[in-house]
This record gives sequence, C-alpha cells and structure tokens, in this order.
Amino acid sequence: MPELRKDPVVERWVIIATERARRPMDFAPEVIQSRGAEGCPFCPGHEDRTPPEVYRSGGSEDGPWTVRVVPNKFPALHGDGGEVHAAGEGIYDRIDGVGVHEVVIESPDHFAGLGTLPVAHVGEVLVAYRERLIALRKDPRLEYVLIFKNHGVQAGASLEHPHSQLISTPILPELISEELEGALRYFRMKERCVWCDIVRQERRNRSRLVLEDESFVAIAPYASRFPYETWVLPTAHRSSFESLLPDEVDALARLLRELVARLGRLFADPPYNFALHTAPLRDTDPEHFHWHLELMPKLTRLAGFELGTGFFINPTPPEDAARFLRLAEAGAGATPA
Amino acid sequence: MPELRKDPVVERWVIIATERARRPMDFAPEVIQSRGAEGCPFCPGHEDRTPPEVYRSGGSEDGPWTVRVVPNKFPALHGDGGEVHAAGEGIYDRIDGVGVHEVVIESPDHFAGLGTLPVAHVGEVLVAYRERLIALRKDPRLEYVLIFKNHGVQAGASLEHPHSQLISTPILPELISEELEGALRYFRMKERCVWCDIVRQERRNRSRLVLEDESFVAIAPYASRFPYETWVLPTAHRSSFESLLPDEVDALARLLRELVARLGRLFADPPYNFALHTAPLRDTDPEHFHWHLELMPKLTRLAGFELGTGFFINPTPPEDAARFLRLAEAGAGATPA
Repeated sequence: MPELRKDPVVERWVIIATERARRPMDFAPEVIQSRGAEGCPFCPGHEDRTPPEVYRSGGSEDGPWTVRVVPNKFPALHGDGGEVHAAGEGIYDRIDGVGVHEVVIESPDHFAGLGTLPVAHVGEVLVAYRERLIALRKDPRLEYVLIFKNHGVQAGASLEHPHSQLISTPILPELISEELEGALRYFRMKERCVWCDIVRQERRNRSRLVLEDESFVAIAPYASRFPYETWVLPTAHRSSFESLLPDEVDALARLLRELVARLGRLFADPPYNFALHTAPLRDTDPEHFHWHLELMPKLTRLAGFELGTGFFINPTPPEDAARFLRLAEAGAGATPA
Repeated sequence: MPELRKDPVVERWVIIATERARRPMDFAPEVIQSRGAEGCPFCPGHEDRTPPEVYRSGGSEDGPWTVRVVPNKFPALHGDGGEVHAAGEGIYDRIDGVGVHEVVIESPDHFAGLGTLPVAHVGEVLVAYRERLIALRKDPRLEYVLIFKNHGVQAGASLEHPHSQLISTPILPELISEELEGALRYFRMKERCVWCDIVRQERRNRSRLVLEDESFVAIAPYASRFPYETWVLPTAHRSSFESLLPDEVDALARLLRELVARLGRLFADPPYNFALHTAPLRDTDPEHFHWHLELMPKLTRLAGFELGTGFFINPTPPEDAARFLRLAEAGAGATPA
C-alpha cells in the first residue's frame, strides 16, 4: 500500500510509492526511448496490454476508438485499501495512499499531439477529463482530482504515445489549498474572484495576453515561474471544469490546440507539463475559485536555488514570452516589433 | 534590473531576471559539455576571467589558492540598485531584484569533488560559506542567504568545475518562512525545537539514520521528496550555520564528504543539489530554528503532478534509502540484510 507522509515542520505531504520501491541499481542512466509505435501498449490492437478501460470515446465497444481512459498499470496511489487509515510514528503522521491513477490515451495515433489533432478530437480529450471528474466525485474517500500531462522525456513522460494522466488524492494538495486560501482572502476583501480580476486586467493591459476569444483567454502570468509559462482561463467565472458546456468544449479545444501548436513552432515540439486546477471534489462551486489550466514548457531545469527556497528564477519576462507567442502565428523565429 | 514579482493568489515570489531575457532561439537543445579543463574560467591561471574575488582561502594574494569566492558573472540578482523599491501594477506587486549572487569555487582541481577532496579541504569550503554569511549580514537590504550546490548537468550545473553558489535575497524565501512558521508552532506547543526532536527520534529509531557522530547526523527524512534525499543536522541545537565552531568544521566536513562519496558509490557520481537552510540574517538565533543541509540526488524528474499539486511522488521509501547508504561503505550494489 502506498503511503502519504507529512513533513512535521512545513506539513508538506509526500506520496511514498512503496510498491515501486527502487534499489540503487533500478535508477539506470537515462535512455532515450526509441521512437515508434512498435510494442507501444497504447496503440490500437494492444488494448489488452492495459488494464480494462474505464472510459472510451468514439466507436462501439470493440470497434475503433478516439480516446481511452485506463487505470495506470503502475499506480502511484490505488483504491484497493478500503477506508483511509491514519497512523502516527512518534512526531510523524501518515495516511494510507488511497486514490486513483489513470491514463488518458489521447489518440490512437502514436505520433499525434494536442497541437496537431483535429479540434474536435482535442475536444473529445477535454470531454474525457470532464467525465472522469464527474465519475470520481462519487468516491467519498477522494478529495481532489489532478489532471495533468507530461509531454516529452525531459518533462517526465515515460511513454511516447500521446497521453495525459489523472491522480486522485485523499487530501487536498498543498498548491490547491494555497490557491483556495489566497483566493478566499481576496474575495473577503474585495467581494470579487481574484482570477476574474486577473482576466480583466490582462485583457485591458494586453502585454501578457497570448490568445483570447469570447469564452477563454491564454495569458503569460505576471509572476511566471517558467519561461513561456501560459495559463488558460474561462473569461466567465467558473469554479469547476465539470461545468464546461458543449459549445465551450469546442472553443477551449481550439484555443488549447493553437497554444500547443505555437509553442511547437517556437521551440520545435518542446517538452512541457500542464496541470488543470479545478475546484475540490467536495466543494465544486466555491464563489472564490476559478478553474484554470497551467501550461509549463520545460526549457530550463529546476536546481538547488528553487528546491532550497521555493522561489523560482525565470530568465524570460512574461511580456516577452507573450509577444513571441502572439507572433508565432506568422511562423517560428519572427522578431517582434 | 531584475525584478521580484509576487503571484497575487498564492503570494509566491518569482525572480524575473530581465537582464538575461531569452528569445526563443536562445533555448537551444541541450548540449552535453565536453569534459575537461580547457577554457574553464574557474581553473587556476584563468582568475582574470571571473569578477574580482570576494574571498580566498590558502596561499598569498597572488599565489595558489584552495577556495575562491567570486561574484557570478551573470547574476540572478545584483546589488547595484541602492535601496529596494516596491511598485504596483493593478492587482500585482513587485520589488527591485536587489541581492547578491556569488560562486564558491571549491578547488583549483577541475576534476575534484566534495566526495574526493581531502577532509581539510572540504572544511575550507564550509568555512568559506560561513565567512560569506557573516560578511553579507552587514548589508541591511538583505534578508536571507541561500547557499546551494548544483552538481551535474541534470541538476542544473552549467559548468563542470566543482563549485557551489550563494544567492542573497531582499525577502525571506517561502520555504524558509514556512519552516520558521511550522517550527514556531511546534515550539509554542512543546517548548522544544522540532528538529531537536527529529534528531532524537531518528537516533533512537535508527531506521532512517545514515551517518552519525557526536556533533552531526545524516538522516533520510521521514517525508523524503526525492529518492535518497538526505539531511545533515547538528545534534546540538544551533540556529545558524555561522555558529559553526572550528572543531565542528572538521567533523561536518568528514560527514558531508562521506555522504557524497557513498552516493557516488551507489550511483556512479549522480547529479545532485543541496541547499543549506540556516536562520535569517536579521534573526540569527531564534530558539525554534535549527540549521540543516538538504541534499537531493537527481535520480527522477519533477513532472506535471508535482508542479500541479506541490506534492511529491517518491518511489524509494527513506528507510530503504538509509539502509543502502549505510551499506555503501562496503562497496556499491551490496544487498542489504
């Protein structure tokens, strides 16, 4: 059973994935995987190499599919443990690592990507996210679902086939708690959602605006941690991703696809991570929370300073990043005015 | 002038190093540097390639040296700005990026390392840290000094010559604030230092103890974020690293050298980061803070889940890591009992 352990000083939780316990010889020097679909467990025809699917989009039960969601074969957390037990060990605290870890296989095409798939197909991926959020809310042991993507070896992807992941946790993750607390503080002071104010200021100011339509914006956040970090937010106040309406799916798919395509043009398919910050499962419509997707290209490395202080050094001002991303429509490497 | 910008929701500070502003084409695909001393700015005979040194150990002014400290040629923060000005931009806040960024060149030998240098030489590196902390305390604009090391390309080192770094900031870093707050909470409840209690419990329990002598211990922390993460702490209550006594320098050098050597035996010179957590410059002897060095081997990658939630997945239980590190004395790859 995996464990969640809490640091007694800063109260930071860590998942100790005891079942993947690794001896020194298991950390082999990094090998770049051979590219290609051969032997890929996510390619069509290999459906029996994954655990049985929990969601499928497109086609009949045994026919062709467009998006599949399957349990992770090597889950960081899993749901077999029944109730969540807490235990102590002197000054330390831990709880059972109950949870869910799933893989969203985004396309049958081994070489597809969110920047190249048709808009409607990207929309099907977004609908898969929404449906899994709605389904997992039913398990009362779970407090949060984080949907995220690791693209490229440098961003932590261990398989090349396009996929995102979902980990559901029995506690609220620290960053989400901090966002909820900070946003509540702001709401109590101003009676407004802080992200609504961010969207308003960025649309007016425009220097950090990357893309916009009626329903969504992509911005380079004012205090970007990473070069070319970009956040996607709904322009209207929406706490949870589950509230996404059918015609918004299409708009969001179009914007996300364009954003990933522009990063691809600027950096030749860069490694990146994204994480969807949505309201907690037990309070899906707080008036002070506003869902957003944080996309973080992996162009630099976190090092001792970041790990030691928790604050980040970003060599690219977000205003520059936004300008290059706006110009990327015209082709890579264009010099901004 | 670099800027410190604050996220309006979670109040996370970021250094925007405007002077290193990077266009898309500046993020070249990673090139592994050629090994070797040729052209190295930190090798003896190339002293004129660094800014003038602020500290030197061993030898006369122009003679051979053992350790040099020099300003970083491309500082993330710098001290030219005079007073620290704050400014606003709508809902956002920023302050001037005033600070200090220095490099500690640990040895004249391009191929040396903390695990292979003589103990007395490692001691000279530690004394350099202490002396810079004492010197920088005199600048009233500075609140904190983080001393850290990036070893190996994967851990963010851009030069191969053995070196550590020091960044001094005009605000207290978030992780240090969190440690101070958590430790104060504990102290108010128990009237004891939380790290003193950690040291006591780990020495009694022994399952996470890696190395110990009278003055210092190395432990695998209960809630380790990373495989083989190891913390070094003084056994007696000491708030700040500056308080290190002459005979403790030798004991600490011996223990740190042994720890790095054992990691080297287990993983063949792995990339790693360390960060020295010491008391803030403006309150060097709080009764609830206990200095410690956090060493983090870079054996896995941070990915979307960690970046999205702030909590970590560690595939190696610290009890296993400690066992392998205890056994590493006997040679690499030994199987624990």
